[in-house]
Amino acid sequence: MSASEAEARMESLSGEELADAWPFLDAAERVEGFRLLATDEAEDLFLGLEAREQATLLRALPRGERQLWVRQLAPDDAADVVQETEQEERSALLGLLDAEARREVTALLAYAEDAAGGLMSPRYARLRPEMRVDEAISYLRRQARTNLETIYYIYVLDGEQRLIGVISFRELFAALPEKTVREVMQTDVVTVPDDMDQEAVSEVFAEWDLMAVPVVDSEGRIKGIVTIDDIVDVVREEATEDIQKIGGTQALDAPYLEAGLVEMVRKRVFWLAVLFLGSLLTATVIGYYQEALANAVVLALFIPLIISSGGNSGSQATTLVIRAMAIGELRLRDWWRVLLKEVVSGLALGMILGGIGFVRVWLWPGAETPVAQAAGIALTVATSLVGIVLWGSLVGAMLPFLLSRLGFDPASASAPFVATIVDVTGLVIYFSVAAVLLRGGLI
Amino acid sequence: MSASEAEARMESLSGEELADAWPFLDAAERVEGFRLLATDEAEDLFLGLEAREQATLLRALPRGERQLWVRQLAPDDAADVVQETEQEERSALLGLLDAEARREVTALLAYAEDAAGGLMSPRYARLRPEMRVDEAISYLRRQARTNLETIYYIYVLDGEQRLIGVISFRELFAALPEKTVREVMQTDVVTVPDDMDQEAVSEVFAEWDLMAVPVVDSEGRIKGIVTIDDIVDVVREEATEDIQKIGGTQALDAPYLEAGLVEMVRKRVFWLAVLFLGSLLTATVIGYYQEALANAVVLALFIPLIISSGGNSGSQATTLVIRAMAIGELRLRDWWRVLLKEVVSGLALGMILGGIGFVRVWLWPGAETPVAQAAGIALTVATSLVGIVLWGSLVGAMLPFLLSRLGFDPASASAPFVATIVDVTGLVIYFSVAAVLLRGGLI
Repeated sequence: MSASEAEARMESLSGEELADAWPFLDAAERVEGFRLLATDEAEDLFLGLEAREQATLLRALPRGERQLWVRQLAPDDAADVVQETEQEERSALLGLLDAEARREVTALLAYAEDAAGGLMSPRYARLRPEMRVDEAISYLRRQARTNLETIYYIYVLDGEQRLIGVISFRELFAALPEKTVREVMQTDVVTVPDDMDQEAVSEVFAEWDLMAVPVVDSEGRIKGIVTIDDIVDVVREEATEDIQKIGGTQALDAPYLEAGLVEMVRKRVFWLAVLFLGSLLTATVIGYYQEALANAVVLALFIPLIISSGGNSGSQATTLVIRAMAIGELRLRDWWRVLLKEVVSGLALGMILGGIGFVRVWLWPGAETPVAQAAGIALTVATSLVGIVLWGSLVGAMLPFLLSRLGFDPASASAPFVATIVDVTGLVIYFSVAAVLLRGGLI
Repeated sequence: MSASEAEARMESLSGEELADAWPFLDAAERVEGFRLLATDEAEDLFLGLEAREQATLLRALPRGERQLWVRQLAPDDAADVVQETEQEERSALLGLLDAEARREVTALLAYAEDAAGGLMSPRYARLRPEMRVDEAISYLRRQARTNLETIYYIYVLDGEQRLIGVISFRELFAALPEKTVREVMQTDVVTVPDDMDQEAVSEVFAEWDLMAVPVVDSEGRIKGIVTIDDIVDVVREEATEDIQKIGGTQALDAPYLEAGLVEMVRKRVFWLAVLFLGSLLTATVIGYYQEALANAVVLALFIPLIISSGGNSGSQATTLVIRAMAIGELRLRDWWRVLLKEVVSGLALGMILGGIGFVRVWLWPGAETPVAQAAGIALTVATSLVGIVLWGSLVGAMLPFLLSRLGFDPASASAPFVATIVDVTGLVIYFSVAAVLLRGGLI
């Protein structure tokens, strides 16, 4: 669409409508719509965007406007935008900031994006311990005019920037004016090291019910704070990654609609090909029993039923265990509790499915099967189902522990991965049961 | 373990150690450990527990201590604990609260646990519009002594408790002391209705980057506020539910280790049985082609390979789409964009797997297959793979849209559900391709 068409279509949108439509607009429509907004609406929209989208939008704006908007960002958000920008454009973007912001952003860029240091803001509220409560409040009043990230907690620092205490705003507010900060502050402060992984930081928030946590370096000096609104994004992002892995894809770097086709295929083909190669073993297993199968083609009827029941129970067990590990409900050393639980559940589930399977096969054993053999086939299917559902549950539940023990992400024990393992071994169970139960009869 | 043994083991634990060990202790150990803590450590531990665990702990304490602890809870947390308590014990528990808290908690109990009203706290900071900024600050100072949930935002109410404005603490603090609240407040306030679903509330937070949002009734009167720390829990909880559904389980009500065996089997058997009944159709399909199969048993070799490739690609597509819908990246009307993307990705993925499959089958067609037929079988497998991987991707991607359109949760399009649908139709594709390509030859 041409710029003038886009303009005509965009002109009628309010900031809120544009924000709603945003993910579904192309680049030209976004820029047009954005530039047509009133300043305060544009500001709400811009600050609400993801860093990736802020970077794209900035790139499309004329230099003057770009400078205006990049200066609206808090240092931690500006650092995220720089990280989303091509390497060769970064220094030009940093050059648009004023000297202090540039220094802050450059310091933040030294941290990995998914570490505590990469999440933190350097603009926290701070006090000296010897201040009186009323002095502290009016001092904070002046600090609040500059751009503080939060004044929910105020940190008390000594002369070397070492963190010696914390006080919540509410406590400071409620304290007697003539006391000193040192008298009313709390000295047991929960902190996180600057290189802590963001998932671990989110667990610290959950454990201590915090609104913000100070980030300290190895000498106990405060470098910034991580606030709970950043943690919401972390929790969402980590869940998305886990879900994509559970589905058997490598985690995407961009939203579904924006991910390029090449990226989409590349992220999916790796596991699909690995699983396919694993699945080739099923042909080997069936090939091994080909003679038996030629004598009793009726056995082929129930192959998909048998293996998909194992895959389904394995998929249930693995997703339950992966999620429980991710939210800290299960630790590595609890594997045996899980094993016990899955033995019992797997047996119960297997017997229920086996019962249904027995009735179905006994009543309708397939057109070509002599009635005399129906009971034998039914028993083979039912017995195999008990074994395979149990086996699927155990593999699904134990694989995340094994992966985690070996240093891999337990979420890699995806539903398709478990299903493939269970397919191959499930066939061995099925044909072995058939060989025993139908000996001298059918095969 | 006896009480005295538990005591001996627990005595050495600090509050933090006990909190870490908590999920893995039995009821007796928890109570012993808790009662042995210093008061401030016990308080940190108690307030950090989930409502379910607080309820269990309270039940195990003597009446006097129970009253002490239940009165430590903010009204919204107390309401959660009451909701986790057996119906017949609820009024006794409410009776332990003081009159005002009892009134607040009872009002909160009227809301569904997963609605905005069920998440909110009635203890928000409020001001009248005609107050001066300096009056407002000292008024808030008195309010802060009582138990406010947050003073991040302060809400400005008229005489009828209708919300007319909001001001952040930072803004109030930075404002000139002699201005009135009305002059410095913002009047465009983002609110949520008290019956809004918690997932929708979490999207409002994400869209507007809020730290708290006021909950209003149908007449615009403020009933309470939802704070962002509650939203972290909502995001985590909803992701857990989605992951469990994607794995083919109904969402569990309790953590994995605490869920009873009966609940565990009940939540899993429903889908497992439904999928099993669906899978029975695979036997019907193969039964239909049984004669062809008897003539070319070699076709049976590749049944698991074919159907699991369809299942895997379907599982990838469905998890990508379900998650994108859950975090608002995809809307119902975007189905055709997804369809286009999946047609291209599905074809590309199918051709890659088909290529690998062709080489494998051509080189090792199975011991019993005449070499002359190997190319035909290989071509059948490869062509089927292209069709089935494409079909799996399309079913996996479109099913969440279909379910959502029909008013169901898109996350019900679990990986096993998609795999089962694709199994049945995949077999039809495989045997149809075989019938065409091998006509006059093998079958």
